[in-house]
Amino acid sequence: MALRYLSARLAQQIDDELMSAAGAFSLDQLMELAGLACAQTLAKVYDTTKYGRVLVCCGPGNQGGDGLVAARHLSMFGYKPTIYMPKPGSKDTYQRLHTQCKNMSIPTIESDNESLRNALKTSDVILDAIFGFSFKGPIRSPFDTALPLISAAGLPIVSVDIPSGWDVEAGNDAGVGLNPDVLVSLTAPKEGVRQFRGRHFIGGRFVPRTLEEKYQLNLPTYPGYEQIVDVTDFDPGQKL
Amino acid sequence: MALRYLSARLAQQIDDELMSAAGAFSLDQLMELAGLACAQTLAKVYDTTKYGRVLVCCGPGNQGGDGLVAARHLSMFGYKPTIYMPKPGSKDTYQRLHTQCKNMSIPTIESDNESLRNALKTSDVILDAIFGFSFKGPIRSPFDTALPLISAAGLPIVSVDIPSGWDVEAGNDAGVGLNPDVLVSLTAPKEGVRQFRGRHFIGGRFVPRTLEEKYQLNLPTYPGYEQIVDVTDFDPGQKL
Repeated sequence: MALRYLSARLAQQIDDELMSAAGAFSLDQLMELAGLACAQTLAKVYDTTKYGRVLVCCGPGNQGGDGLVAARHLSMFGYKPTIYMPKPGSKDTYQRLHTQCKNMSIPTIESDNESLRNALKTSDVILDAIFGFSFKGPIRSPFDTALPLISAAGLPIVSVDIPSGWDVEAGNDAGVGLNPDVLVSLTAPKEGVRQFRGRHFIGGRFVPRTLEEKYQLNLPTYPGYEQIVDVTDFDPGQKL
Repeated sequence: MALRYLSARLAQQIDDELMSAAGAFSLDQLMELAGLACAQTLAKVYDTTKYGRVLVCCGPGNQGGDGLVAARHLSMFGYKPTIYMPKPGSKDTYQRLHTQCKNMSIPTIESDNESLRNALKTSDVILDAIFGFSFKGPIRSPFDTALPLISAAGLPIVSVDIPSGWDVEAGNDAGVGLNPDVLVSLTAPKEGVRQFRGRHFIGGRFVPRTLEEKYQLNLPTYPGYEQIVDVTDFDPGQKL
């Protein structure tokens, strides 16, 4: 059975169902598991010794929240995360997640490009949690100038769900997106990443079987009690 | 540095601080990570092949909520959990966690002792999430009759935080508690389990370093990106 690649609309619908009265999940729960999966993906590929300094780039939406959760877990795992978050989200959850990071002594850099440039010079790897499956172009300030700076730094990039700047369905056709080495798709991969050729994981091990079957997600089998599964060797569209 | 064993009062204080405005954690977040650690502990010791049928015993408090989270994750890991929850908690979070289990097709047995007896006959292992660090004896109905039934079944038991029936500080001096094979202490071990001699894990990898230092918890180093750490070979009171 082939992995199903989700349209932006279906990704939103699954999220909505999980958090509906019937689905009963809270945003806090899903974000905690999603962010943990992101942190574990980075830790799986990039060890603390060589890649200890992680620049966690957070957008203003829920994906930025996943990034903040990931930053906290990375700190627990022994990494030295730094947060770049030029447009903090307004949700209460988002702000609490940021407070949790501050309580872990995780620094947040200033939002200007000069600060970003400096942070990039002292980082070993990027966690890209800027735009998620609800992204609609064009890329607005300050991310229009931040994305090229991040790309130009030449550091390894781990992107969450959809590489920032890619269209959720058309991918990087416009060529303005980041080019990550590693991707962690949350719940299920999005249409836009069919052409992604790097190391690919799926995280978000919380989809009930009934929901999986309803939308024929054909999720891969996670190993043991892991929260992520490596799907790199499953060619897009191929049978698992 | 020796592991610190917590009094009931200090355990409550740490919980309160984590969920205060300053600590900024939500109950949902902490319960998700705690329940995940419980499920992973069981999965670490008891494999799905021989111990697939898990009876998850939940009390009415927050520890019952950890149990419900663990039941859901165990189902994700390929186990067949069944819930025994004779006194459902009244908190909204508790009820939502139970709905999540129902959405995973995890059955909940009736609350009478006959149903418990039958469930024990078709189970391979118990997850004991009945009483936590806020337990104060004596043991009230229906748990006064349920605990002896669970003990008499002779199944392996994984207890969460404090084996049910044990005093949080005095341990099992009264001899009415369960005798688990495995214990998962959340955040840090409680005074009452100093005498526990089975396999011992710590979970709840969310305590900021500042809080850890403030209370001199001397937490062990978790391996890699794991959410649990095996402390069996650290004798209580011995240096790590």
